Amino acid sequence: MRVGWIGLGAMGRPMAVRAATQGHTVRAFDVDPRVTFTAAENVALLGSPAAVAVDTEAVVVMVATPAQAESVLLGEGGVLAAVAPGTAVVITATVGPEALLSLAAAISRVGAVAVDAPVSGGTARAATGDLLMMVGADPEAVAGVRPLLMALASSLVVVGPRVGDGQRMKLVNQLLAGVHIAAAAEALVLAERLGLDPGQCHDVLGRGAATSFMFVDRGARMVSGAFDDVRSALDIFVKDMGLVADEAAALGAPVPLAEAARRQFRAGADAGLGRRDDSSVIEVYRAG
Amino acid sequence: MRVGWIGLGAMGRPMAVRAATQGHTVRAFDVDPRVTFTAAENVALLGSPAAVAVDTEAVVVMVATPAQAESVLLGEGGVLAAVAPGTAVVITATVGPEALLSLAAAISRVGAVAVDAPVSGGTARAATGDLLMMVGADPEAVAGVRPLLMALASSLVVVGPRVGDGQRMKLVNQLLAGVHIAAAAEALVLAERLGLDPGQCHDVLGRGAATSFMFVDRGARMVSGAFDDVRSALDIFVKDMGLVADEAAALGAPVPLAEAARRQFRAGADAGLGRRDDSSVIEVYRAG
Repeated sequence: MRVGWIGLGAMGRPMAVRAATQGHTVRAFDVDPRVTFTAAENVALLGSPAAVAVDTEAVVVMVATPAQAESVLLGEGGVLAAVAPGTAVVITATVGPEALLSLAAAISRVGAVAVDAPVSGGTARAATGDLLMMVGADPEAVAGVRPLLMALASSLVVVGPRVGDGQRMKLVNQLLAGVHIAAAAEALVLAERLGLDPGQCHDVLGRGAATSFMFVDRGARMVSGAFDDVRSALDIFVKDMGLVADEAAALGAPVPLAEAARRQFRAGADAGLGRRDDSSVIEVYRAG
Repeated sequence: MRVGWIGLGAMGRPMAVRAATQGHTVRAFDVDPRVTFTAAENVALLGSPAAVAVDTEAVVVMVATPAQAESVLLGEGGVLAAVAPGTAVVITATVGPEALLSLAAAISRVGAVAVDAPVSGGTARAATGDLLMMVGADPEAVAGVRPLLMALASSLVVVGPRVGDGQRMKLVNQLLAGVHIAAAAEALVLAERLGLDPGQCHDVLGRGAATSFMFVDRGARMVSGAFDDVRSALDIFVKDMGLVADEAAALGAPVPLAEAARRQFRAGADAGLGRRDDSSVIEVYRAG
């Protein structure tokens, strides 16, 4: 497929390269002028969101925040000023259901087709096309971009036909992921205070009923202190736990653990850890 | 080995049967007169803790609370009034480090040997000898009861030589387990409120970065509503999250997620769910 790509950060860049190396023609844009690609990566860089949206079958939006998504779609030089009717606009960013619905309405107004397709799995899986993708879109819209989505995701789940359902499932995913990261930090700092060996703790408890994907994955970096190896920035969870809290409040759903985890991530950002790996939230506990 | 056994509840009964069927001679006591054993199970029932403590090499204490442990050891007709010097008293119950240290001192005073050996894994693994056991005891004490411990646990971890270290590691285990159970309930109720299919949510998110042992295990019962199939009573987590909170407070360790989870389990007990499966904590979220 001919693909336009907006957003080349920790997730977006390896996903774009994956799409290109799987045979799609990818033309991309990022606000950061330092982004480059090798010849083998085969991604063409253009100067604006509008430029990548011309003469494409699909535009992928993998930016960091709802405000950025609005800007690249609706702002000056944005995608929707340039996109042809019938083009799919695939939002793989986590923006929450409210923002997604607002963006989808704008996409429809120009005759394009919104595909709500947030992903989970991290940067390593992004590079190998091994992501979990949660799709909310009608079957025809999904069929139109299936070859592109299959290049990115090994697990493609159509949550429902409603645009927004992908974001809704992603919120539930992020609630669990964020709580599990904070819980890993909380447990390992309690182990330190109890005089136990955190490395043994991580090894032993990671094999039993107390384990989680995040305890095993982020816990290893918490024990080693490798926070500068940024797989996913702490700021991402400040944003995503905020989306969880806002949506839960709107629905009247109680989320006390997510609220507690959100406070820890926020404290981390306040302490200057926002651009470091999210495993650095353990420093908030150590200082507490 | 000749083994005395105190406590034949959801975990204690299958563990005692496992020890007996692995060739140990087991004589047991429980305060509940309704407990029985088949001939094949090969566990002899006696009338008091003191009775099972006579002429044994090891006495296992698998009661539910610190107060029960104190009663069966130090109360009238208790183990310590009858036990011979040199006998191992193996505390597999989760009582917390403070209570364990106090009990260990009393055990030492009568010349017996305390082995701090809490377990994790649930009733199914208890029956097959597949538990994780976290041991705090000096090497000689561990060596003396190793044949018995190996009948119960497939993973035997000597956390340290200090009596209490087993309980300390178990607290960290329970912090994670309790937070993960509450997080599973929180996530599935958010999914319900978002209009998603909780069964699909459980299936999809259980395969990705949001997964935990508890999300997969307890989440299945939360979705099916099988709370009367009691694998582990909600009251156990009321107790264990209380032990976590007390120890954390004594050490000045911040445990905001564990505190939030504790409030949910307490609310479940207040709502009459204490004797039901801990997965029933989802009802607290549904009512919230």
